[in-house]
Amino acid sequence: MALTPSRTVEELTELRELTGDEEGAQRVAWTDTWVRAREWLSGKLEPLGVEEETDEAGNQWFTLAGASDRALLIGGHIDSVPNGGWLDGALNVVAGVEVLRRIAEEGEPPLTVRLVNWADEEGARFGRSLFGSSAAAGSMADQEELRARRDADGNPLPDALARQGVDLDNALDARRQLEGAAAYLELHIEQGPVLESLDLPLGVVLGTFGVERHQITFRGQAAHAGSTPMDKRRDALAAAAKLALEIREIAKRTGEGAVCTMGSCVTRPGIVTSVVETCTVLLDQRHLDASKLAGMLAEAQEAGERFASEEDVEVEWEKVWSIEPILFDPELIELADEAVREVSGTSHRLPSGPLHDAAEVARAGIPTVMLFVQSLRGLSHTKLEDTKPEHLEQSVEALDRLASKTLAKLAG
Amino acid sequence: MALTPSRTVEELTELRELTGDEEGAQRVAWTDTWVRAREWLSGKLEPLGVEEETDEAGNQWFTLAGASDRALLIGGHIDSVPNGGWLDGALNVVAGVEVLRRIAEEGEPPLTVRLVNWADEEGARFGRSLFGSSAAAGSMADQEELRARRDADGNPLPDALARQGVDLDNALDARRQLEGAAAYLELHIEQGPVLESLDLPLGVVLGTFGVERHQITFRGQAAHAGSTPMDKRRDALAAAAKLALEIREIAKRTGEGAVCTMGSCVTRPGIVTSVVETCTVLLDQRHLDASKLAGMLAEAQEAGERFASEEDVEVEWEKVWSIEPILFDPELIELADEAVREVSGTSHRLPSGPLHDAAEVARAGIPTVMLFVQSLRGLSHTKLEDTKPEHLEQSVEALDRLASKTLAKLAG
Repeated sequence: MALTPSRTVEELTELRELTGDEEGAQRVAWTDTWVRAREWLSGKLEPLGVEEETDEAGNQWFTLAGASDRALLIGGHIDSVPNGGWLDGALNVVAGVEVLRRIAEEGEPPLTVRLVNWADEEGARFGRSLFGSSAAAGSMADQEELRARRDADGNPLPDALARQGVDLDNALDARRQLEGAAAYLELHIEQGPVLESLDLPLGVVLGTFGVERHQITFRGQAAHAGSTPMDKRRDALAAAAKLALEIREIAKRTGEGAVCTMGSCVTRPGIVTSVVETCTVLLDQRHLDASKLAGMLAEAQEAGERFASEEDVEVEWEKVWSIEPILFDPELIELADEAVREVSGTSHRLPSGPLHDAAEVARAGIPTVMLFVQSLRGLSHTKLEDTKPEHLEQSVEALDRLASKTLAKLAG
Repeated sequence: MALTPSRTVEELTELRELTGDEEGAQRVAWTDTWVRAREWLSGKLEPLGVEEETDEAGNQWFTLAGASDRALLIGGHIDSVPNGGWLDGALNVVAGVEVLRRIAEEGEPPLTVRLVNWADEEGARFGRSLFGSSAAAGSMADQEELRARRDADGNPLPDALARQGVDLDNALDARRQLEGAAAYLELHIEQGPVLESLDLPLGVVLGTFGVERHQITFRGQAAHAGSTPMDKRRDALAAAAKLALEIREIAKRTGEGAVCTMGSCVTRPGIVTSVVETCTVLLDQRHLDASKLAGMLAEAQEAGERFASEEDVEVEWEKVWSIEPILFDPELIELADEAVREVSGTSHRLPSGPLHDAAEVARAGIPTVMLFVQSLRGLSHTKLEDTKPEHLEQSVEALDRLASKTLAKLAG
């Protein structure tokens, strides 16, 4: 029986019915619904005779032994945000089942092939995303801090994990899973509008953006809106407004997919009768090239100082978070390009704005690549998230071809 | 005994000690401290043999009978905001005491002279400013609405007024107080930085600004900060930022003291990982000329539409409040100019951004003018509010000269 991509769509629909409600997907990691989804996944793979194992970080591994211990990994995450979409994460694991079926049917593969369902990619319950993949990658550096985390109901993270047989103290022992890994492949919905705007079903992901996130506070002087002439004002909002517009120019000048976002602006005292004394904004900057990202940050900082000076206000920068860009493997990118072209005629290379488990695997030094399939209206993390069935089927086919090409290259 | 301006400074200091604490003035209308201040004022005027009366709106009147029933009114308000300054309002009533002393000493004046201490100018307790003066002016149109008002402790406004002998239902009967009024004079601290920046102690007020106050909502599309290319965004904050900067250009182009203020900016969802979907701002525009004010509003509305269109977002305007400009009397402005020049050498004419009781009196058709005395750092409504003693003394002298000139003109 050959690859049957339509079965993936059927199985995703089945999963949706099993683990969603009228508000969307409810497969939040470490919950009973998540456990039900994992059991459902086991059930799908059982007929293949693959070996199943759950590691110390709660990642679920399905291994089809090959002629060599070296392994091709295909990974995704079945967990979702609350009221989430049916495809974010689950698409890859369910497509991976179909690819494993096809490979298993052809007899012993040249390399071992493993499907991994990463635990808690979303971090929806405890605010810590990429849990399982960062443990396996050895990059989880916040175990101490995680010990104190609680969910909205006050349940400690370690207790919730223990209920699923995961001991936080041992989570990093999951690192052994990546020993022998020769390549890692992940298919995901784009969660953005690029492929739709290009009218393309599929794209090849170059890597995940580096991110610089800062809180910027401008401090001027509150003053009566009626009695303070325009030229006597120290208006914090004016400086922030200039920066809100300038970051777009910075992104445009930098190019190559650069994005800069001011997502929040808070004014104090924030009343109609006073010039704004304090204006606090959040700035998010992303680029695939570390030096360009650093350049964008420097430009924004310079602009912030300049605007503060022009408006006679103070400015203060505080880093909220940052991460380096993570680049995927050039040879795997070539293979992915070939696979996409064979399936849909045209390929397109694009960076990923959101982080993915693939970024953690790539950070661990495993050659990695991702495929994106078009998202309708770019929507994700909502029940409105959707992709056309024909595009989903094409994505399964592309993943399958990429797996074949990667196996052939690694075996060759 | 001639006019003794230094006594006004001494008496203001005395009032501060009697009715303030380490946080500032506490003469909030309808409170016991306010009553104490009113009793203190009565005590100061008692030796002059003036007739005292409290009207139906709680305004305190002191009448020095003259040769004619026509009356020159001098007015201010002894009430303050909580933690307020020592001068806002009180300066005029205490300076008025000194002027009344001087006039009384000279024998029967040609016109009746009345000092009025308006009730609840600040509206600090119930959010309704200019209470007593609007009642006397006959412009109080919100009695029904006021009946339902409560202070922060839940006390109904009618009860608090009744405790001071004021029946809200009869407040408009205070209108009879303005019968026979021939002119109204008011001295006030500037509460702004203009006179200080010109290094002038005194100024003549041309009128109170007209105000247009609007809430403007820009509606774009929330989108992932990482996966949404810059040219695919519908960023509500960007449109608002353009408007925040453009209103300053509008004020500059309009000139003649025009002010435009964006005092509040609220972003939704307001998170670092999303383009702003909804941005709501408050716009306050003021001008002394009604047609220029209307022009500024029209320009802002046109700009808002243009920016919304440029950013592919929706925009909606909602009026919050507006008031027409109120112009003071040209002949009294001339007399005030003379008085100020005689006292300090140079006069300066300026509009008032804040409203004052004088605006209500002017609306009632009584020829009105105000004098401003310099405020240090433009600060008011705070214990930091201050004016140099020599400037306070000059202001008493200017008010006295203005009263003399006005009496002479009215009697002539």
